[in-house]
Amino acid sequence: MRPVDSAMSQQPKAVVLFSGGLDSTTLLAMASRNYECHAISFNYRQRHISELEAAREISQQSGIKHQIIALDEGVLAGSALTDPDIKVPDTLAEGIPVTYVPARNTVFLAHALAVAEVIGSTDIFIGVNAVDYSGYPDCRPEYIEAFSKMANLATKASVEGQHLVIHTPLISLSKAEIIQAGIELGIDYERTVSCYQADAEGRACGVCDSCRLRKQGFEAAGIEDPTRYR
Amino acid sequence: MRPVDSAMSQQPKAVVLFSGGLDSTTLLAMASRNYECHAISFNYRQRHISELEAAREISQQSGIKHQIIALDEGVLAGSALTDPDIKVPDTLAEGIPVTYVPARNTVFLAHALAVAEVIGSTDIFIGVNAVDYSGYPDCRPEYIEAFSKMANLATKASVEGQHLVIHTPLISLSKAEIIQAGIELGIDYERTVSCYQADAEGRACGVCDSCRLRKQGFEAAGIEDPTRYR
Repeated sequence: MRPVDSAMSQQPKAVVLFSGGLDSTTLLAMASRNYECHAISFNYRQRHISELEAAREISQQSGIKHQIIALDEGVLAGSALTDPDIKVPDTLAEGIPVTYVPARNTVFLAHALAVAEVIGSTDIFIGVNAVDYSGYPDCRPEYIEAFSKMANLATKASVEGQHLVIHTPLISLSKAEIIQAGIELGIDYERTVSCYQADAEGRACGVCDSCRLRKQGFEAAGIEDPTRYR
Repeated sequence: MRPVDSAMSQQPKAVVLFSGGLDSTTLLAMASRNYECHAISFNYRQRHISELEAAREISQQSGIKHQIIALDEGVLAGSALTDPDIKVPDTLAEGIPVTYVPARNTVFLAHALAVAEVIGSTDIFIGVNAVDYSGYPDCRPEYIEAFSKMANLATKASVEGQHLVIHTPLISLSKAEIIQAGIELGIDYERTVSCYQADAEGRACGVCDSCRLRKQGFEAAGIEDPTRYR
């Protein structure tokens, strides 16, 4: 991802949910063309905590403001991503997978809404995707629309007439299209971490849902997969 | 508040947003008649942090499970309740007061939603009130309704057909009516902390919005105000 132009500080501010993965790195690159971005990541004791290191590194090198928000231990519980006793599956399951984290996007977006109001932004970016995704309910367009309606009743800013927009530029893109868009924006995907059980150095397992979707995306895009597998 | 009957553990579970103040203590007493309650409070470096001690004490003595969730420093910022540089006003202001905390109820309810899904509950109680309140946008019925719609699209539980209900039994009660209901439920309001700038011992200032509404409530209810003023 190319460093942002410092002249861009005159642009409107946006809050970007940024995990350091493939999708949200592309999202951040897209948003930073038109907004002064405030990227936020969450420490929720996720198994793949090395994604936070990737997020920090990518935003730092791009000159984008970055904040890691710690969630209280045990709030986003009951998932293979947060409970070491639940194994991350290496085969595709029917329905919503055990990697689903209860109310994760609602907790993330609620924090984004608070940050947006504090910094005076009316634009939030989230990298949800309804095509090559894992079947999570809080990635669907109808969910985002409902959150947006709620958010526009929730804040002092909304009462004062400011309209908050939740941007989801990836929502109808395939993984291959996301990758192609990111390559054009200068992203080095080697540094991004998507794997649900990435090791401490951010190296991927190659078999979880997230790895599989990412791998297939590079294949479909006809681009060599730069992912560091362990 | 009377201790809960242990036979009640066969009742459905509910998550109750419980600050230790007058309204939410009444709410908790109401909810615990029909639900096995899981009370949650938030540490957001609020000025009146002694309310958490009240919450802990009240829930403990009532035999109700209680969890204090820590929010990351600086998330709920930009308010007289979280910024020591913004003074809590002692006169009633026009519009939304400076004690408004950006997106507070959205962050609180998002956490409640996560906790509810993890413990297998479809009932959340919040003590919002649209009568004797301070003009906060996230206390209005239309906000609660919008949050409820969003929540019912957000979770695995909702996709699996469970309908989440957000209960707001105080929403159309006056402060006097809340107090009367609480007295009937055996609440000792002396132990509750409502003041926006309560001291370390939970003693009230007597002049902030929250104190004023509480004081007027006792007067209107014809009940001696048991609040400990400093």
